[in-house]
Amino acid sequence: MNVLWIFAHPEGRSLNGALRDHGAATLRREGHRVRHSDLYAMGWNPLVGPADFGHDPARRLIVGAASERAHAAGALAPDVRAEQDKILWADALIVQFPLWWYGMPAILKGWFDRVFVQGFAFGVTGPDGRARRYGDGGLAGRRALVVATAGARAAGLGPRGVHGAAEDLLFPLLHGTLFYTGVDVLPPLVVTGADRAGPGEGAAAAAALDARLRVLPTADPIAYRGERDGDYTGDLVLRPHLAPGRTGPSIHVRQPPAPCVRRP
Amino acid sequence: MNVLWIFAHPEGRSLNGALRDHGAATLRREGHRVRHSDLYAMGWNPLVGPADFGHDPARRLIVGAASERAHAAGALAPDVRAEQDKILWADALIVQFPLWWYGMPAILKGWFDRVFVQGFAFGVTGPDGRARRYGDGGLAGRRALVVATAGARAAGLGPRGVHGAAEDLLFPLLHGTLFYTGVDVLPPLVVTGADRAGPGEGAAAAAALDARLRVLPTADPIAYRGERDGDYTGDLVLRPHLAPGRTGPSIHVRQPPAPCVRRP
Repeated sequence: MNVLWIFAHPEGRSLNGALRDHGAATLRREGHRVRHSDLYAMGWNPLVGPADFGHDPARRLIVGAASERAHAAGALAPDVRAEQDKILWADALIVQFPLWWYGMPAILKGWFDRVFVQGFAFGVTGPDGRARRYGDGGLAGRRALVVATAGARAAGLGPRGVHGAAEDLLFPLLHGTLFYTGVDVLPPLVVTGADRAGPGEGAAAAAALDARLRVLPTADPIAYRGERDGDYTGDLVLRPHLAPGRTGPSIHVRQPPAPCVRRP
Repeated sequence: MNVLWIFAHPEGRSLNGALRDHGAATLRREGHRVRHSDLYAMGWNPLVGPADFGHDPARRLIVGAASERAHAAGALAPDVRAEQDKILWADALIVQFPLWWYGMPAILKGWFDRVFVQGFAFGVTGPDGRARRYGDGGLAGRRALVVATAGARAAGLGPRGVHGAAEDLLFPLLHGTLFYTGVDVLPPLVVTGADRAGPGEGAAAAAALDARLRVLPTADPIAYRGERDGDYTGDLVLRPHLAPGRTGPSIHVRQPPAPCVRRP
């Protein structure tokens, strides 16, 4: 596979940097090709603005329309187009970052803000004229693994932990960004207690990463409900018989069928 | 009250800009003082890096430790200190942005990443030596209102909408950032269908904003559970008798007591 590794830590000599180097070596040993977007090292500009679209700053900027027009005309800023070309080359994305304020560092959020524009990642229609989105979209056919480090301990990021469950905190990225644009999203790897990591914990994290990378081509993605699976009404609300009476991000994951019970 | 209005849209001549101007005028009419952090207009740098901390780039940067040291020494970058001074001046924060990829634009995420440093917003201890956090912290005594615009329609951002509930998508900001640092967090105002807003909808959004701003000093905050309320175990997991069997961000909100039922 062609793998694009997006990395968003300001310090290469960090636990994050060590995991990235280790993981990229593992992927190459497995026979994959790896390219990198090391955002801090690239001096990536994370700010959406008129210059992305060749837009005259004297006129009012409407971001969605301007980005769609510029993309269609091949006139997006060269640094944005270069990232889009890498994504089109890739079969899989690794998105790696330290969890800051329970989300992505600004430099990475701005990579999605600037690169995932209308007409490229979303806002594309199928042959029937309907929007392709949530399980289908401009990036369909690709898979993604999110790798995040967190200072918090595991229990606090668990299903009933005070910080919120890691999968819920990452829902805007996993579901609202990656799955929205058609990407198959693998369960994230969250390395907890990272601020306290000694050398032994770093080795454990590297082993956990290796285990995920070895099954990168074959692992089952999170079973998010596709917009066209019939699970949502025309108003995009989950039908009442599904996850009945429940709310929260996890209702958008299909539940495995109940095990068959044989009557005696 | 002293109100700091943080604004994160690249275009002042937008629905967001009109709402900001309208809201600031309303606050002044109500007798409040208003200061602004218009992040795009200020040319705000959203990237955490060694220059924030006067850190020698030849040495390994450990962000948490470096930021805490620089803050304690009064040596943080001047633009970061200026924002901290505004926050200390303020009794209330308005945090306004367009929802991009179901979260904050990078420029705003980077405002939190750079300004809310250890020793200022969090990582402070009480007289008993315990960390002040979730309901208490460096910013205690302040309140915040989040104002976001979204292209999506309201139903899709409702409790069972395909995009996720707005309060769940904003949980990392509302709970993990603002409440974490001791701020009283008001229910957010989310203006939906913003891409389709005609002049009439703009007026409706302004009226909705006015209604929130008029009760800014008195409205009840979201009843998130404080870390010291006794609702969490020592491992920071919600005790099993609270929201029993449930998961998701909403379990961290105290439920109102069941209404009193009088037996006939």
